[in-house]
Amino acid sequence: MKRRDFLKVSAVGAAATAVAAPAIAQSAPEIKWRLASSFPKSLDTIYGGAEIMAKQVAELTDNKFQIQVFAGGEIVPGLQALDATTNGTVECSHTVSYYYVGKDPTFAVASSVPFGLNARQQNAWMYQGGGIELFNEFYKKYKVYALPGGNTGTQMGGWFRKEIKTVADLSGLKFRIGGIAGQVLQKLGVVPQQIAGGDIYPALEKGTIDAAEWVGPYDDEKLGFVKVAPYYYYPGFWEGGPTVHFFFNQEKHAALPKAYKAALFNACAYTNTWMNARYDALNPAALKRVIGAGAKLRPFSNEILDASYKATNELWTEISAKNADFKKVIDAMQAFRADQYLWWQVAEYTFDSFMIRARTHG
Amino acid sequence: MKRRDFLKVSAVGAAATAVAAPAIAQSAPEIKWRLASSFPKSLDTIYGGAEIMAKQVAELTDNKFQIQVFAGGEIVPGLQALDATTNGTVECSHTVSYYYVGKDPTFAVASSVPFGLNARQQNAWMYQGGGIELFNEFYKKYKVYALPGGNTGTQMGGWFRKEIKTVADLSGLKFRIGGIAGQVLQKLGVVPQQIAGGDIYPALEKGTIDAAEWVGPYDDEKLGFVKVAPYYYYPGFWEGGPTVHFFFNQEKHAALPKAYKAALFNACAYTNTWMNARYDALNPAALKRVIGAGAKLRPFSNEILDASYKATNELWTEISAKNADFKKVIDAMQAFRADQYLWWQVAEYTFDSFMIRARTHG
Repeated sequence: MKRRDFLKVSAVGAAATAVAAPAIAQSAPEIKWRLASSFPKSLDTIYGGAEIMAKQVAELTDNKFQIQVFAGGEIVPGLQALDATTNGTVECSHTVSYYYVGKDPTFAVASSVPFGLNARQQNAWMYQGGGIELFNEFYKKYKVYALPGGNTGTQMGGWFRKEIKTVADLSGLKFRIGGIAGQVLQKLGVVPQQIAGGDIYPALEKGTIDAAEWVGPYDDEKLGFVKVAPYYYYPGFWEGGPTVHFFFNQEKHAALPKAYKAALFNACAYTNTWMNARYDALNPAALKRVIGAGAKLRPFSNEILDASYKATNELWTEISAKNADFKKVIDAMQAFRADQYLWWQVAEYTFDSFMIRARTHG
Repeated sequence: MKRRDFLKVSAVGAAATAVAAPAIAQSAPEIKWRLASSFPKSLDTIYGGAEIMAKQVAELTDNKFQIQVFAGGEIVPGLQALDATTNGTVECSHTVSYYYVGKDPTFAVASSVPFGLNARQQNAWMYQGGGIELFNEFYKKYKVYALPGGNTGTQMGGWFRKEIKTVADLSGLKFRIGGIAGQVLQKLGVVPQQIAGGDIYPALEKGTIDAAEWVGPYDDEKLGFVKVAPYYYYPGFWEGGPTVHFFFNQEKHAALPKAYKAALFNACAYTNTWMNARYDALNPAALKRVIGAGAKLRPFSNEILDASYKATNELWTEISAKNADFKKVIDAMQAFRADQYLWWQVAEYTFDSFMIRARTHG
């Protein structure tokens, strides 16, 4: 009911209505939004997050606030989800902040950078360490407001046609890897390749590229890389616990009734848990299946990890020297990380260490 | 507005009202509930979870659904929160399921048992592994419906007056520890003690008890144990990632409008993340402070962990032989755990391992 209609009704003289209706007219309007996901429907876990969020919001508002989800490419190409939200083509999007490092490397730190935080630490930083507020200061430049909306957990390091044991083995390696992780590995001789998901398999098969990283067992299995690049490396040290974000057009978000903002906040928080839980629940069986199909699990050597860590810190120094926004957030992340791992290594890590040992030897 | 009032108003002939009002009268009633927390206000993180949940529900419903939170002892003693929810003295409670092992050991498995799941695995089990549904089947016997509502992360093993290196050192040790963990340690010679929080310090000081476990650095610091029992052991292997639960009186929950059920579901899920994030954010500084105050950090020896693991599995066999509900949930947990650690040891654990090494040596 529009406010004008209410006034008309009220004038009829129904006192009981006059008490109840104003709050309704103002606080529960019917709203329809469109959401641009960066992901294809085939990636049901990461794409599915937006459907889950929309479903919760609808239930929370008695279907008054409806968000229609469009897969990557349906309204705009997947990697233009942020731009579409900034310019109001859509009211919101579900995407990964690090996709937008071409605009500013600061975007990456909100999701994941090499040797960043694990998934639970990322939550601690976002929800209780000032992370949400810190990044929304930056996002104002792009007229969006962002909330965490998913996490994959630590990803895998990718599929390699041959074994990689030393830093020397990385020299000239054509590796499908993007963004800041590509910049780090370039310092070690890797030749980063930008290839869309659907083109990776034939490129690996023909040997146009030597390796490719994607997500983890559940998503990787679908692309069938095991047949053409069987060495499956871990960990994906450039994605220790990447946060997937919901971006909202700032003006549209600010105009929402308070209860609808609360609906978005809580639905996004649930989706954040849902996605991580779903990856955790699905990855073990997928890992068994890819191993059954011939995947050869290999840890990155300490030599490669150490050299990558050094290259990462050099890159932070270089970028920080010319980008104050980046310096602010990378310094904050590093300070938070130091404290987190100080604590993590005590109770959490020793518990997990024992449980892993007990599973394999107990 | 009551339905009767609406009918009266409608009869006046205001067509616009007739369209809008029925949904309102049915779907957004004013409801006030009382919540019994098991915790004292001084434990702001674990007690605070109920306040956070109530605040989200109020915001989600334009303050129509209000939940008033009472600390342990205000309506009923902290450990009677479940009973008060079952019998309808309160509509809901915020408590730990394992407090109720005296009724049935099955309660413990929903929160945490020795060598159970870590916090993230617990979420995966609850939200995506059938855990919520599995336990609500059991909780029907107690006329409650439960949702996850917090997690402390892996707890510490407690404060000891002297060092404990071998299983022999446990013999006759008067250890303040409750529930199933106490039963496990009893098999190794420990004499479990049940002492309320406020009485622990004087008992440790006088030597009436030899050791006491509580939570982790942030909560433990408040009780000042470091002065009287400086050996601070880890990990608390009986609480790898304990879930705190919200319990709802089943009948009251079932009678709620769909949108209010959604408000509870999402607010509880946010609180689940909030509490873990808050403990993670606060524990590192507290750990530094207790170490500064003289705490001597000590890991439990492998001998003690191995013997405790063996004793735990023996206890599961004993209880399972006589309790079908327990057998069902402990078998489900163990199957889920085996898969979780199979995957966890690959990407997550090697990432954390490197980060811990980098922090201390890099």
